[in-house]
Amino acid sequence: MRKTCPAFLVLVLGFSVAAGCGGSPPPEPATVTAAPAPPPDPLPSWNDGSVKRGLLDFVARVTQNGADLVPLDERIAVFDNDGTLWQEKPVVEGAFTLARLDEMAKANPALREKQPFEAALDHDAAMLREEGLDGVLQIITATHTGMTDDVYRAQVLQFLATARHPRFKAPYTSLTYLPMLELLRLLRANGFTTYICSGGDVDFMRVFATGTYGIPPEHVIGTRFEKKLMTARDGKSFLLREPKIESINDKETKPIGIDREIGKRPIFAAGNVRSGGDIAMLRYTHDVPGSFQLVINHDDAERESAYAEKDGATLAAAKAGNFSVVSMKNDWKVIFPPR
Amino acid sequence: MRKTCPAFLVLVLGFSVAAGCGGSPPPEPATVTAAPAPPPDPLPSWNDGSVKRGLLDFVARVTQNGADLVPLDERIAVFDNDGTLWQEKPVVEGAFTLARLDEMAKANPALREKQPFEAALDHDAAMLREEGLDGVLQIITATHTGMTDDVYRAQVLQFLATARHPRFKAPYTSLTYLPMLELLRLLRANGFTTYICSGGDVDFMRVFATGTYGIPPEHVIGTRFEKKLMTARDGKSFLLREPKIESINDKETKPIGIDREIGKRPIFAAGNVRSGGDIAMLRYTHDVPGSFQLVINHDDAERESAYAEKDGATLAAAKAGNFSVVSMKNDWKVIFPPR
Repeated sequence: MRKTCPAFLVLVLGFSVAAGCGGSPPPEPATVTAAPAPPPDPLPSWNDGSVKRGLLDFVARVTQNGADLVPLDERIAVFDNDGTLWQEKPVVEGAFTLARLDEMAKANPALREKQPFEAALDHDAAMLREEGLDGVLQIITATHTGMTDDVYRAQVLQFLATARHPRFKAPYTSLTYLPMLELLRLLRANGFTTYICSGGDVDFMRVFATGTYGIPPEHVIGTRFEKKLMTARDGKSFLLREPKIESINDKETKPIGIDREIGKRPIFAAGNVRSGGDIAMLRYTHDVPGSFQLVINHDDAERESAYAEKDGATLAAAKAGNFSVVSMKNDWKVIFPPR
Repeated sequence: MRKTCPAFLVLVLGFSVAAGCGGSPPPEPATVTAAPAPPPDPLPSWNDGSVKRGLLDFVARVTQNGADLVPLDERIAVFDNDGTLWQEKPVVEGAFTLARLDEMAKANPALREKQPFEAALDHDAAMLREEGLDGVLQIITATHTGMTDDVYRAQVLQFLATARHPRFKAPYTSLTYLPMLELLRLLRANGFTTYICSGGDVDFMRVFATGTYGIPPEHVIGTRFEKKLMTARDGKSFLLREPKIESINDKETKPIGIDREIGKRPIFAAGNVRSGGDIAMLRYTHDVPGSFQLVINHDDAERESAYAEKDGATLAAAKAGNFSVVSMKNDWKVIFPPR
């Protein structure tokens, strides 16, 4: 009978097949002198540096017996989505909105002659700016409501399956940040519950968050439209998406959304530099002693994008609160998962 | 050395000490002919009958390999609270509201001369009815908002620690239904996530749901007041409870609350007969093939209460949907946990 090398020996003791798991008898355990292999790096896409060290220290600190040990039910981490977990140039939900508007104009050409739809369909940014926030809301409402949740989900799925990023020529769900996927896994492996807390439509994100991030629908916090419970002819109930925003989840309302969904303060938050949308959430978690805040700075035009915030408020808040700032250029070995 | 009978033998094989775990050597395993003991009953406070059998069959069906197996992430159960998990005569949050109003009137005697507060303080039901829904809302708002979440939680805790039920002379948190606590445990032991979905204030319930039901804050769905993110003098953020209802979680809005918090349809729902508040939630889960609906009928004046619904809508819905109806009198061996 051929002897095989038990997998756990390879893992625990660093035995290689050559070192004693071949056909010859293995040495006595007492005589093994090879140093144990270091545990595998849980963040292999992160360059060594203060941010990576800070993350690993934080996880060790809150999970090991000692004064900083945090019970499992308080190990809660919240992540912004656009620009924090995946690329946001363009914002994916924005691309979906324009694609849906194109579809709608095909079915109803009269849309092409009506503002703000005409401006959006022509990708006329100047005209769209003139229509202001009301115009944008009108476009989002027209593309996100008036149908059942099931129909909307099918439209999002169809978009994600077919759309390609203009520069990277790849499906949007493949343009997540590999270092952040590793971080999500590391936290969950250490008993954390990971939530998304984003300004995006909660139902848009719920369609792909499980498959893309391992984050199930019940752990997605976002902006919501009102819904109405309806009864179909077969007697079954369904939810109709109403053309009115129920709650916005951005800036000062992110902590409100966290309270609504979780009811406890997270001990970890991650956001990014662009609009200042994550400052309130970062500060809200910062009030918890021993917590960790991560801010992603987009400074890598070559591999992804380089952009700053008009007023620099997020970096100022990071400095004041001693948040860890990721330089995508310097801290990340790779940006996107291999395709 | 005295031989002891290993506990797992007693459990697994039904060995009694007399049958072979004494001082004499046990018989060879191959010669053991005693029948294995039945597994312990997970619902010992339920009388045998169609409701108990239905519950056990449901759990077996969705957890055993076969056509009806439900993956872990879809094993979601929702429970109404008042009258479903604990007694509701009086509604506990109502008792809290009147107790708080008494406290407030002590600090501010002018309250005693203002309607609807005067009627509530005098427990003048006829006068209170005259003040209508607006009056009730005014009282609830006055006692539930205008303070920070932390202060409110402390007030709820203080009430629960000191208040006693007028008839049972016991703390309200001891007046839960033991059969339902067993059911919560059975479901969780079988991979279910158990949620509360109640018309009560979400923050009121979050104070005791973990300790009382094993249901953490993030699994409590309820009515919510608006909140505002504020910054204290020390720079820390806190949530102020605003005097405006953000969302009501009752009747047709219970499915909306479930969608908001969970984003999937539960496969189990439990509610009770009184106001018809659970019908929409029961039906919403009933649309899932193979799901289970439980309705508690309060018909036990001696051990708890006996009351019906004015229009009988919940029992009618139960009949139409083939929901299981619990007769507290006949289906439950005991009502409350031993004190």
